[in-house]
Amino acid sequence: MTAIAIVGAGLIGRSWAVVFARAGLSVRVWDADPAVLEHLPDDIAAMISDAGADPAIANHVTAFPTLAKALDGAEWVQENGPEKLEVKRALFADLDRLAGPEAILASSSSALMPSAWSEGLAGARRCLVAHPVNPPHLVPIVELCPSPRTAPEVMDRAEGLFRRVEQVPARLNREIEGFVLNRLQAVLLAESLRLVSEGVISVEGLDDTVRHGLGRRWAFMGPLETILLNAPGGVPDYMRRYGSMLAALTDGSARGEAFTEDAGRIVAEAFPGTDIRNRQDWRDRELAALDRHLRSRIERNN
Amino acid sequence: MTAIAIVGAGLIGRSWAVVFARAGLSVRVWDADPAVLEHLPDDIAAMISDAGADPAIANHVTAFPTLAKALDGAEWVQENGPEKLEVKRALFADLDRLAGPEAILASSSSALMPSAWSEGLAGARRCLVAHPVNPPHLVPIVELCPSPRTAPEVMDRAEGLFRRVEQVPARLNREIEGFVLNRLQAVLLAESLRLVSEGVISVEGLDDTVRHGLGRRWAFMGPLETILLNAPGGVPDYMRRYGSMLAALTDGSARGEAFTEDAGRIVAEAFPGTDIRNRQDWRDRELAALDRHLRSRIERNN
Repeated sequence: MTAIAIVGAGLIGRSWAVVFARAGLSVRVWDADPAVLEHLPDDIAAMISDAGADPAIANHVTAFPTLAKALDGAEWVQENGPEKLEVKRALFADLDRLAGPEAILASSSSALMPSAWSEGLAGARRCLVAHPVNPPHLVPIVELCPSPRTAPEVMDRAEGLFRRVEQVPARLNREIEGFVLNRLQAVLLAESLRLVSEGVISVEGLDDTVRHGLGRRWAFMGPLETILLNAPGGVPDYMRRYGSMLAALTDGSARGEAFTEDAGRIVAEAFPGTDIRNRQDWRDRELAALDRHLRSRIERNN
Repeated sequence: MTAIAIVGAGLIGRSWAVVFARAGLSVRVWDADPAVLEHLPDDIAAMISDAGADPAIANHVTAFPTLAKALDGAEWVQENGPEKLEVKRALFADLDRLAGPEAILASSSSALMPSAWSEGLAGARRCLVAHPVNPPHLVPIVELCPSPRTAPEVMDRAEGLFRRVEQVPARLNREIEGFVLNRLQAVLLAESLRLVSEGVISVEGLDDTVRHGLGRRWAFMGPLETILLNAPGGVPDYMRRYGSMLAALTDGSARGEAFTEDAGRIVAEAFPGTDIRNRQDWRDRELAALDRHLRSRIERNN
């Protein structure tokens, strides 16, 4: 049985543990904070219960008191430490020294490029970013980003592992700031913040436009298949019909200047008195329900 | 019973007919092409059947041989003619002359601003754009865009009508090219096309990143509630943590230059041999299933 080491057992680390455990893999968890490890069984059981999954999944997850023990025999290491470059570099130096020679070392980092923290490591070729959307046990995408030194066969094994555990790996061919997901999120957010800041539309109207409009297609097709189907002659036809219109819209679109404190205040004021924790629980229930719906459609169509 | 006139009965017009008819409204349809009117009963019946809706809905839809007859007694006119300014201006001059004094005149146009075609009309105050996503009977959003002359009470009545027929109106406060939906689509498409053109990620990987990642949240929350829930302290906390990172990503993002013929070719080549019509039918089945899923969750949470 493949063994996975989870290094750092906050919310993301625990969610990763559930991803690998529910696929039947052996999950070995370490965290620098002994209190986190002590609460791990309860926290994992609660996460599994909230997701409506089989409680027996928890039997695949074991906490270890030292990093070396958690890494023992692990073929894959999923690191979820702080997003600070010096901390990450030191931690990966330890991982590279302690992990078995065949182990792959992956970071969940969203902000730090893999070259930045793997540079100079003897095992840089086995290092990559495997960036999830939170929480990964409810959202399947995993962005795989190599450094210039990551070996292609390491990327192949990474892709294979995530397909095996029923996540969806999206493989980048090279490093880029923000990877793909946050780059796409950023451009849509910039224009959204500008439109509500300038009073073109309310915050609710903006969210409605996405959740009852654009998001309906993007939830099961993505934006490129969407345009394939939006013109009778396919993509070239779409580009001829709409390309210049879309180009003109983007030429005037918002960029970094849209991320102002004022814009943040306008968004915040549209959700008065929201209990964030409570609403996050609601979000996670909806993510779980949507994932079940979408998986059932894929099965139906196959 | 409220009567609705549908002017132009191509795919969008027929889908609008189903929206209003299934809410129990009386739908009066005219098209400049007699053959379209002749096939209307069969085409409407097929659309209702494909959507899994009640066949009796078709009884609310009637074809009329002249524009004047279709408009007789209509309180709302939904126009779906060609996206050509001179055609639209001439058609709205007719509508303004022939429709009853209380009727609201709405265009489904995505490309023409309401001021452009309503300027100079005696009834400019009752004109607006009500822009759907296709097909509106499967995607609830309707963008309501006024011209500077549109009366606020006309916008209020428009919003009320669409809520009554269980669509989701998103009300713009003023005209802007592309309205909101296509502006957001355009910025995300520009960056998507750039990333696949530069070989950062495959077309499939790009679509996967949205449909198995970003789109999972946007399908039920929208992008602004998404950021509200992505930091423990809410939006101001989110802006402090991630604002400068997102701003930097957008400052380097693609714009109009990304909509090239080459980018279109790369996307097209990722879907070899796709039967567009067949795949559009698949899309519409998935949109219907997703709409049922999302409506069932709203009922459950209320």
